[in-house]
Amino acid sequence: MEKVNIVIAGPRGRMGREAVKLVHETENYHLAAVVDRKNDGGLLSDFDGFLGLDVPVYSNIEECFQKTDANILIDLTTPAVGMFHTKTALTYGVRPVVGTTGFTKEDLKELENLCKEKGLGCVIAPNFAVGAILMMKFAQLAGKYFDDVEIIELHHDQKLDAPSGTAVKTAELIAEVRESKQQGHPQEEEVIPGARGANYDGMHIHSVRLPGLIAHQQVMFGSAGQTLTIRHDSYNRASFMSGVKLAVDTALKVDTLVYGLENIIE
Amino acid sequence: MEKVNIVIAGPRGRMGREAVKLVHETENYHLAAVVDRKNDGGLLSDFDGFLGLDVPVYSNIEECFQKTDANILIDLTTPAVGMFHTKTALTYGVRPVVGTTGFTKEDLKELENLCKEKGLGCVIAPNFAVGAILMMKFAQLAGKYFDDVEIIELHHDQKLDAPSGTAVKTAELIAEVRESKQQGHPQEEEVIPGARGANYDGMHIHSVRLPGLIAHQQVMFGSAGQTLTIRHDSYNRASFMSGVKLAVDTALKVDTLVYGLENIIE
Amino acid sequence: MEKVNIVIAGPRGRMGREAVKLVHETENYHLAAVVDRKNDGGLLSDFDGFLGLDVPVYSNIEECFQKTDANILIDLTTPAVGMFHTKTALTYGVRPVVGTTGFTKEDLKELENLCKEKGLGCVIAPNFAVGAILMMKFAQLAGKYFDDVEIIELHHDQKLDAPSGTAVKTAELIAEVRESKQQGHPQEEEVIPGARGANYDGMHIHSVRLPGLIAHQQVMFGSAGQTLTIRHDSYNRASFMSGVKLAVDTALKVDTLVYGLENIIE
Amino acid sequence: MEKVNIVIAGPRGRMGREAVKLVHETENYHLAAVVDRKNDGGLLSDFDGFLGLDVPVYSNIEECFQKTDANILIDLTTPAVGMFHTKTALTYGVRPVVGTTGFTKEDLKELENLCKEKGLGCVIAPNFAVGAILMMKFAQLAGKYFDDVEIIELHHDQKLDAPSGTAVKTAELIAEVRESKQQGHPQEEEVIPGARGANYDGMHIHSVRLPGLIAHQQVMFGSAGQTLTIRHDSYNRASFMSGVKLAVDTALKVDTLVYGLENIIE
Repeated sequence: MEKVNIVIAGPRGRMGREAVKLVHETENYHLAAVVDRKNDGGLLSDFDGFLGLDVPVYSNIEECFQKTDANILIDLTTPAVGMFHTKTALTYGVRPVVGTTGFTKEDLKELENLCKEKGLGCVIAPNFAVGAILMMKFAQLAGKYFDDVEIIELHHDQKLDAPSGTAVKTAELIAEVRESKQQGHPQEEEVIPGARGANYDGMHIHSVRLPGLIAHQQVMFGSAGQTLTIRHDSYNRASFMSGVKLAVDTALKVDTLVYGLENIIE
Repeated sequence: MEKVNIVIAGPRGRMGREAVKLVHETENYHLAAVVDRKNDGGLLSDFDGFLGLDVPVYSNIEECFQKTDANILIDLTTPAVGMFHTKTALTYGVRPVVGTTGFTKEDLKELENLCKEKGLGCVIAPNFAVGAILMMKFAQLAGKYFDDVEIIELHHDQKLDAPSGTAVKTAELIAEVRESKQQGHPQEEEVIPGARGANYDGMHIHSVRLPGLIAHQQVMFGSAGQTLTIRHDSYNRASFMSGVKLAVDTALKVDTLVYGLENIIE
Repeated sequence: MEKVNIVIAGPRGRMGREAVKLVHETENYHLAAVVDRKNDGGLLSDFDGFLGLDVPVYSNIEECFQKTDANILIDLTTPAVGMFHTKTALTYGVRPVVGTTGFTKEDLKELENLCKEKGLGCVIAPNFAVGAILMMKFAQLAGKYFDDVEIIELHHDQKLDAPSGTAVKTAELIAEVRESKQQGHPQEEEVIPGARGANYDGMHIHSVRLPGLIAHQQVMFGSAGQTLTIRHDSYNRASFMSGVKLAVDTALKVDTLVYGLENIIE
Repeated sequence: MEKVNIVIAGPRGRMGREAVKLVHETENYHLAAVVDRKNDGGLLSDFDGFLGLDVPVYSNIEECFQKTDANILIDLTTPAVGMFHTKTALTYGVRPVVGTTGFTKEDLKELENLCKEKGLGCVIAPNFAVGAILMMKFAQLAGKYFDDVEIIELHHDQKLDAPSGTAVKTAELIAEVRESKQQGHPQEEEVIPGARGANYDGMHIHSVRLPGLIAHQQVMFGSAGQTLTIRHDSYNRASFMSGVKLAVDTALKVDTLVYGLENIIE
């Protein structure tokens, strides 16, 4: 099998480091070059933590694509340069996988046309956590068949907001398909205020905070005689990498723009 | 809203009793009659456990449909009469929801044609447990994105077979979409034999048996940094009723034969 | 092994029926007689649901003890007669196991003296759920070593009060040994009110209510890098029977009054 | 409150680094010096990863105690020097907390006498994971009241042995108090071999291995109508630090030798 030649932009960020590891450890992937504003003309191994990775560094992405036979760009930089990187890649015939946010509707329209014109796939994903995306997808699907659902999200005690963004997004997705309903007994009473958690359209959300915990969410559906539970446990940043891999493999297969991993997963 | 007139065949079986309760407690359902080989011409309330349910009992299903303005037949009898009941219902313009098994391919073909001819919906469901069906569906879907999965099924200690039929069926469904793979470390060693459970195409299945437990199954997927878990807990037979309700509502909407609830759920 | 002759007072109540089943199914127990205000001089099998149990029924407990060679009385009647039954049993040399409540301090003092005088054991237990008692005991013990704890209790959606009595009692027991502390981040913010649950002395309690659920409680402790969870699932009234058995076996061994199963468990 | 002056031997190992962090972050602890075979006379901050920690380094432990007013030695070195370090500390009036293994019975006897003679506390702990120790303690206690128990241990898929050492140790501890019993139905049958897991004295142990998982164990007890579950989740090495802190605080309070944290926890 021929290897997929991959360029990573932003290799020294937290996601970037994981992506370098992913590409390095995946059999049919080859890390062809990296784009970094520092150390132009040097090697990735010159940076701390990339021992043995003698991969060329370019500060100019155009120069990179001129000198590198790349199939895929994995862009994990910043919203400020994301659009420029994505367009440049497509122009040079390289399929982009983009983790940065901040694309406007106009940007997406422009990229969609560029993909069509070039016949190239491109995946833009604000969230690479496949497990979390599946959890939300399953929760929405189950919401069609169960009227009653409660969400328990559990995080480390340094988290400031409760409920978590993912919990609220999950509730929103369920609300799209579930008939609005106040859950629990109509006469139920909170002996201590807050016991029944946050109320979102009649669904209840509970936020557990404990040292030791990382990032966990459990969506519980109930009907007479049964419960159905969907749970995602995220232990560390490596959890994003299965999503990056899925995005790379998709960008190689399709010839259109895909926005959001939830549109790949079916 | 006009009420749905429902006839239940087999009201005294374990499923039948739950179905009577369901119809009685659902606002827009009306229990119009029951079919039972005993107490022809009497009332359902003559039987033990149906206090106050003054619903006519017929032993002859044709007579029942002649004298009752029925929309739906819920058939929870035996394979021996299931086919006859289903055909009779369709002939009389009544939409059948059937929980009996034993239909042959020829039977299904015949019923499919009859449905088409009459323009009537019919739902045949060997398994009414919506939660369990969703669990299997989600497991299969997740199996496309995770290579590693283990199934833990937990039942009361009077269960004879291990793994459970549902666990094996879940593994089969996942195997349809998952690339075959031996999980665990290639050099892993069982210090005590059996520790790693049953091996199904490289996936592992663990059967827990304890008094107190009822019927539970947990499907766990793992990849770097994350796990995704789908769990179904079945506490009693009432859990089948959401499936019966779904089947009734579907039979009213469609004008074809549906075999298996998994084909309704999407 | 000689069998333990047992008299059950209140055999037709919900707990009573379970106790009859327990005694009947325990190898070295023998159901010698029952005390019931109805059917004096008849048999237990005359009542519905006791098929084949040809055990004599007495309405007068003194007459029962005069005519029966009993070792143990299991009293599951009402507070109104509990004290009288307990004293009568001790007077006749029978060891009482009592599930009724409503004993005053004076009652307990009097029974304590009577036990000592007679050299007989007696167990009075307002709560026979061994699992729930162990959960609370373990939670209190763990509370000495973990400063951070959250309680999640899950019940069917017909329950009126939140948090449950058991959850509040668990929090009280932990508070006895835990240094008072406001958990979570000092700047944490509820985006939707109630998300962080009920606050009891800085601990958080979350009440989940869903149809299908029965009675469940999970106590989670966290510290850097780890969590410790203690969970009790109660599925039905049979869960009380291991406590009744423990009480019977204790009453046979000791020669004092024991009040509360938590004082047997160590 | 006066600060506790602490010396750490072996600060650069994995446990050592966590201990440095613990002492540095605990309000009433003060890191007075470290013992390391490298960088004698230098500072801890000379080593990678100890930025700002200007704590003196000694290669000679005796010189360290001569020049440092220490209350506690935390020894996280190797079995080869553990005994020498412990004795030296006691000789200099410093209370040792020791994480190394390899002490013989004779060593322990000698240290016990030395503690008594000096009136000093000393804690030797082969396992500092308080949560895991509590889990085992609770499991043993529950084993007195439940005859049926199954252990599910879940680890990353790089683990070689199954069941884990902790699972086997837990089963051993339960077996000490539980009457031997073959669990499950006498006629139960493994449709796929291994489904019922490893058999230890009639108890069953199941080993789940998945990428993403870290180190988790769940001990489930069952009896009619209920289950009781004790679960420990270990996410990283920081989980040992609550045990180190407990050991330090105990060593300050007692004037004897304590071997094993399970003897502190009660």
